[in-house]
Amino acid sequence: MKKHLPLVLCLFTCFHYAFAQNQDSIFIRKIFDEALVNGRSYEDLRVLCKQIGPRLSGSANAEKAVVWGKKLMESYNFDTVYLQPTLVPHWERGSAEVASFTTKGKNAHVRVCALGGSVATEAKGLSAKVIEVNGIEALAALGEAKLKGKIVFFNRPMEPRLINTFQSYGGCVDQRYAGAKEAAKFGAVGVVVRSMSHKIDTFPHTGVMAYDENGVKIPAVAISTQHAEQLSKALKADVNLLFFLKLNCKAFEDKPSFNVIGEIRGSEFPNEIVLVGGHLDSWDNGEGAHDDGAGVVQSIESLRLLKALSHRPKRTIRVVLFMNEENGLRGAKSYADLAKASGEKHLAAIESDRGGFSPRGFSLDMGDDVAAKILKWRALFEPYGVYEWPTGGSGSDIAPLKPFGTALIGFVPDSQRYFDHHHAETDNFEAINKRELELGGATMSALLYLLSEYGL
Amino acid sequence: MKKHLPLVLCLFTCFHYAFAQNQDSIFIRKIFDEALVNGRSYEDLRVLCKQIGPRLSGSANAEKAVVWGKKLMESYNFDTVYLQPTLVPHWERGSAEVASFTTKGKNAHVRVCALGGSVATEAKGLSAKVIEVNGIEALAALGEAKLKGKIVFFNRPMEPRLINTFQSYGGCVDQRYAGAKEAAKFGAVGVVVRSMSHKIDTFPHTGVMAYDENGVKIPAVAISTQHAEQLSKALKADVNLLFFLKLNCKAFEDKPSFNVIGEIRGSEFPNEIVLVGGHLDSWDNGEGAHDDGAGVVQSIESLRLLKALSHRPKRTIRVVLFMNEENGLRGAKSYADLAKASGEKHLAAIESDRGGFSPRGFSLDMGDDVAAKILKWRALFEPYGVYEWPTGGSGSDIAPLKPFGTALIGFVPDSQRYFDHHHAETDNFEAINKRELELGGATMSALLYLLSEYGL
Repeated sequence: MKKHLPLVLCLFTCFHYAFAQNQDSIFIRKIFDEALVNGRSYEDLRVLCKQIGPRLSGSANAEKAVVWGKKLMESYNFDTVYLQPTLVPHWERGSAEVASFTTKGKNAHVRVCALGGSVATEAKGLSAKVIEVNGIEALAALGEAKLKGKIVFFNRPMEPRLINTFQSYGGCVDQRYAGAKEAAKFGAVGVVVRSMSHKIDTFPHTGVMAYDENGVKIPAVAISTQHAEQLSKALKADVNLLFFLKLNCKAFEDKPSFNVIGEIRGSEFPNEIVLVGGHLDSWDNGEGAHDDGAGVVQSIESLRLLKALSHRPKRTIRVVLFMNEENGLRGAKSYADLAKASGEKHLAAIESDRGGFSPRGFSLDMGDDVAAKILKWRALFEPYGVYEWPTGGSGSDIAPLKPFGTALIGFVPDSQRYFDHHHAETDNFEAINKRELELGGATMSALLYLLSEYGL
Repeated sequence: MKKHLPLVLCLFTCFHYAFAQNQDSIFIRKIFDEALVNGRSYEDLRVLCKQIGPRLSGSANAEKAVVWGKKLMESYNFDTVYLQPTLVPHWERGSAEVASFTTKGKNAHVRVCALGGSVATEAKGLSAKVIEVNGIEALAALGEAKLKGKIVFFNRPMEPRLINTFQSYGGCVDQRYAGAKEAAKFGAVGVVVRSMSHKIDTFPHTGVMAYDENGVKIPAVAISTQHAEQLSKALKADVNLLFFLKLNCKAFEDKPSFNVIGEIRGSEFPNEIVLVGGHLDSWDNGEGAHDDGAGVVQSIESLRLLKALSHRPKRTIRVVLFMNEENGLRGAKSYADLAKASGEKHLAAIESDRGGFSPRGFSLDMGDDVAAKILKWRALFEPYGVYEWPTGGSGSDIAPLKPFGTALIGFVPDSQRYFDHHHAETDNFEAINKRELELGGATMSALLYLLSEYGL
C-alpha cells in the first residue's frame, strides 16, 4: 500500500478538487438562477436613474443617492451598513452652453457641453478663430505664433480598429483631460474637444479635465462627434471661420459627502475582506445608468444574491459605493486612507465600472501566482459566456488599494456600446438591458463567492 | 539522420502549421481592420431598413429588396450575381388589429398583432370568454367542456434561467406555431399567445403559425408581454371577462419571388462551394434589422471584405440572400432542390440569422471529424472575443443542405437582446450598433476565408 500512497493522495486530491468544483458549479448555477428569476438590480437601477437621476459630486442628487444606497442595503439586511465621510469637489454646469460657428456669412449651431471643471467664458461669450489639431503632440510645432488667441479644436477620433473600446478611449482621453492646460501654454483662449465616442451623433460627452494650478485657465467643451465632423469640414473650406462659445459653469467650495458601505461578516475569517464596488456619483448630463449606476446595483445585488441563497461567506464581503469617481476620486482616496489606518486586510477587490453589458470576463491586476489561483476557476464561468481573463487595470476606485497587496479585479462586460452612452445624456435607464445587467451581477457574485470561500 | 526523420518531419509540420496560423492571424487582423475602418454593412443596412423597410414575402417591398440585393452585390463587383426563382406565400395583415377586454364594466385596450398566416375574424370582430393555459400540454385535460367557445390564452413565458435565449424561445414557440390548430380541436374560437420576449413592454411580437389543412381555422394573435400580464391578472379576478378581437388579415395566391445570389469563383477548386447567407424577407411590422437585415448585410460584407483585401479565394464563395425564411422557407427549399439537381458540391455553409450583436462564436452541425478541423482555428478568433463553438443547429435556410454532407455553421452573436426586438416593431435600424454589426461580419469573413483557403 505504502508505495501507492502518492498515487492515492493524488487521486484523493483530484477527486476532492473535482468534487469542490462540482459543488461550486451547482452553487454558481443557483446564483444565476436567483439573479435571472428574482433579480432586483434592474428595478433598483430604475429608482436610482428615474427617481434620483444625475448625481454629480457635491450636488443635492448625490446626497439623495447616498441616502438611497444606505436604505437599500439596509432593506436587504446586510449585517452592517454605514457612511464613510469624504470631502468632494463641487462644480456646476450652470445654464446650458451655447455654441455655434460662422462661416461665409452663415451661422451653424453645434452641440457642446462644458468639460467637468472648466471655467466659464465671460458673460458675453467668447469668439475666436479655430485651429484643428490631431492631439496634444501637435501643439508644440504650431507654437504661440499659430495658437495665440485661437480656440484649439482637438479632433482625434477614437481608434476604430481596437476591439476593446477602452483602449481606444485611453488613446484619446488626454485631449480632454489635458488639452486646455496644454493649449493655454501657447496662448489659446479656449478648447473644443471631439466627444470620446465611436458613434456619430449629436450628443456631446463630458468628462473631467484639469488645469495647471498656476496656469491660465481657459474654457473647455466637448463637441458632439457629428458636429466635430461638420466643424472640421467647414474649417477646411474656411480657416477664418469664427467660433462662438458661452459657458456658465462655476466651481464652489468642497462639500462633505460619503462613501456608502454595507457588509456581511465572514464566518471563519471575518478580518479578511473581499470588496466589491462601483461609484455612486455620475456626470450631470445623463442618468448615470451604465456609468456607474450599473456597477452600484450589481455590487449590491452580488451580495444580495448570496444572502438570498442563505449563504454565509467564510470571509467578510464588503460592498462599497464610492463617491466622486468622476471628478476627483476623493471617495476612493478616503477609503484607502482609512483602510490603511485601520490595518484591515483587503484580500481582493472587484470593481464594476464598464457598463451593464453582457459579461465577458475579469481583468486581473495582481501577481502571477495569485492570478493563477483565480484562473483555476475559469471553467466555472464558461457556461455563462465568461471566457476572458486578461491581465490589466481593474478600476479607478479600487486602484489605491494596490499598495496593500490586494488582488485587484475589474469586471469586464462587452465593451462595444459603452462609449455610445458614456458621459452623455443618452446614458439613461433605457440604454440598459435587464438580462445583461443581471448576468453581470451574477458573474460578479460568483467570483465573490469563490474568493470569500477559498481566499487566495 | 534517418532515425531522426520522424522528429524532423514533426518539427517541420509544427513549424509549417505555426507559420500558416501566423499568416492567417495577420490576414484575419486585416479583415477586422477593413471592417472597422471602411465597413459598409451599417450603411447598407440603413438603406435596407429605411428606404425599403418591412419586406414580408409576397409584398412589393420584398421585391424591392430583391432588386436592392442584386444591385448592391453588382456594385461590389462580385464575379456573378443572379436571381434564383422561388414561389412564396402571400399573406397580408390588413388594417391594424383591435383588441380589448371587458371586466366589471371596464374596458381595457391591449396591443396584439395577428400571427403570420392567421385567418381574420368576422368583420364585426369576435367576443368570447378567455381561458389561460401554460402551454399546449394543458389543453387535453381541460377538454371540450372547458375550451369550447373560448379564446385560449397561451401565457407560458420564456424561461429566464437559460443563458442562451434561443433555448428559451425553443421552449415556448410551440404555443405560437401550433396553439391555434390544437385549441381548435377542442372547439376554441381563437387564441391569444404571449409574445416571445423576455422584456416586459407593450410591443406584440408576431411569427409564423400553421393550421391543420382540414381542421377548423381560428384567429390567432400575439399579445404584448405587458398586456399578457395585465390580462392574466384580470382573469384571476374575473374568469368571466370578455375578450374582443378584430383581425383583418388575408391570404392570397402564392407569388413568384427570388433568392439573390452573388459569388466569387475559387481559383483552385471552383467547384467546391462555401456558402454564406441570411434571409432577405422579414416580418411586416418592423424594419427587419436584426431579423435578418443584419445577416444579409453581414453576408455581403463578409465577401466584400475579402475582395477589398484583393484576396482571391481557392474555393468558390457564394452569398445567398434567401427569400421567405419567415413563413415558408420556400427559398431555402428551392435552393436545396436546385443544388441537388446541379450536383454542386457544398463544402460548408454559414448562416447569420441571430441578430447583429457582438460575435460570440459559431455553432457546428457536422461530423466530429469535420468539426475537429474547424476547432483547430479557435485560437485565431479569440483576439476578437469569439470563444464559443458549441455543437448545435445552424440556420433554417441552410439546414436543407444537410443531406449533401455540407458542414453547417450558425453564426452565434450575443443572444441577450435578440428577443427584445424579434418580430416586433422595435426591430428597427436604431436597435443596431454599428461596431457590433461590423465585428459580426468580420468574424464571418474570417471563417469564410479559412474554409475557402483550406477546405475541410
